[in-house]
Amino acid sequence: MLIELTVKDLLSRFSSSDPTPGGGSASALASAVGAALLQMVAALPKTRNGSDDDRAALAAAAPALDGSRRLLTGAVDADTAAYDQVVAAYKLPKASAEEQDARKAAIQRALQAATDVPLGVMQQSVRALEEATIVAAHGYKSASSDVGVAIALLMAGATGAKLNVDVNLESITDASYRGTVAAEARDLLETVGAIAERAEALLR
Amino acid sequence: MLIELTVKDLLSRFSSSDPTPGGGSASALASAVGAALLQMVAALPKTRNGSDDDRAALAAAAPALDGSRRLLTGAVDADTAAYDQVVAAYKLPKASAEEQDARKAAIQRALQAATDVPLGVMQQSVRALEEATIVAAHGYKSASSDVGVAIALLMAGATGAKLNVDVNLESITDASYRGTVAAEARDLLETVGAIAERAEALLR
Repeated sequence: MLIELTVKDLLSRFSSSDPTPGGGSASALASAVGAALLQMVAALPKTRNGSDDDRAALAAAAPALDGSRRLLTGAVDADTAAYDQVVAAYKLPKASAEEQDARKAAIQRALQAATDVPLGVMQQSVRALEEATIVAAHGYKSASSDVGVAIALLMAGATGAKLNVDVNLESITDASYRGTVAAEARDLLETVGAIAERAEALLR
Repeated sequence: MLIELTVKDLLSRFSSSDPTPGGGSASALASAVGAALLQMVAALPKTRNGSDDDRAALAAAAPALDGSRRLLTGAVDADTAAYDQVVAAYKLPKASAEEQDARKAAIQRALQAATDVPLGVMQQSVRALEEATIVAAHGYKSASSDVGVAIALLMAGATGAKLNVDVNLESITDASYRGTVAAEARDLLETVGAIAERAEALLR
């Protein structure tokens, strides 16, 4: 598993000419780091005003951030596994008409699975950014730069995941799936921009 | 060292309430992943048009990307080490006037060192983004989403590093250092935005 590699080795794997791990896993990782940084700020002993209200808000944000981080961390490997399935499907035999049909169906199934992973990364990035507004409003002021970095990473992760959704959709033939997912990804990216702006405003 | 940890463990370290590793190391990591993805696309057997010109341009970009990735990877640990020095300096004794002077000087030295690291992350992110324009123009078209993710990560890394430069500058008393570094960081972030826009236009 990629997340069991050392950071140094994962960087080497990203840099090698093998197509995986690629941008999809990198996007999931960026968002996972963003969620983790928000967890850190939510867990600091100090809060914005030292009030019970701050503590309660940060405590309530923590489980959602932990859930997002776990799903985003899982997506680092899931994205690479899903892409490897697409490559494997393209390599299926295509001698007979039956084989061609089976291959086409396998490719389409694999492409949809490979699209669902970055779509999930976008969803979890939005979820973590929603919690970022809580952390920005109630977290310790001296950790503002950590929250700012988290927001930047979650935006980059969601932007990168959107690029991966879009590139897969180009090869997907099911028009209904394509339309639904394209619309959802567009909406999610707009939401990311809007929430990030709100969270950054709260940091000031 | 942080980069010798597994990815999973580094994520846990980011999420813990310990102040390090924090946003500075996370920014360096994001840019390191961005540089690594560009290395991957530059190393792919296929290029934009399959021309010798493409191959030569990508081969020329590779060493700079490798250099940037190495420096950015080193900055993941350097940022945390530098911040730990700042914390240690604040803990120095301050009973006598002499101790107070020595402590103040140590804090200022540590703060400048802790500012130089994210400034270096910004510089290397710019360097990698310059190569991203080459990779975008000459790299294999099917890897465009990887280049797009790399650009997003390098922008996030530079943005995050700028937040860390700025927060340190607030506590630095040397007006000349403060002015010089603030201006450089501002210029670097503008450059990041301009080059990223150029690289993204070349991808289309």
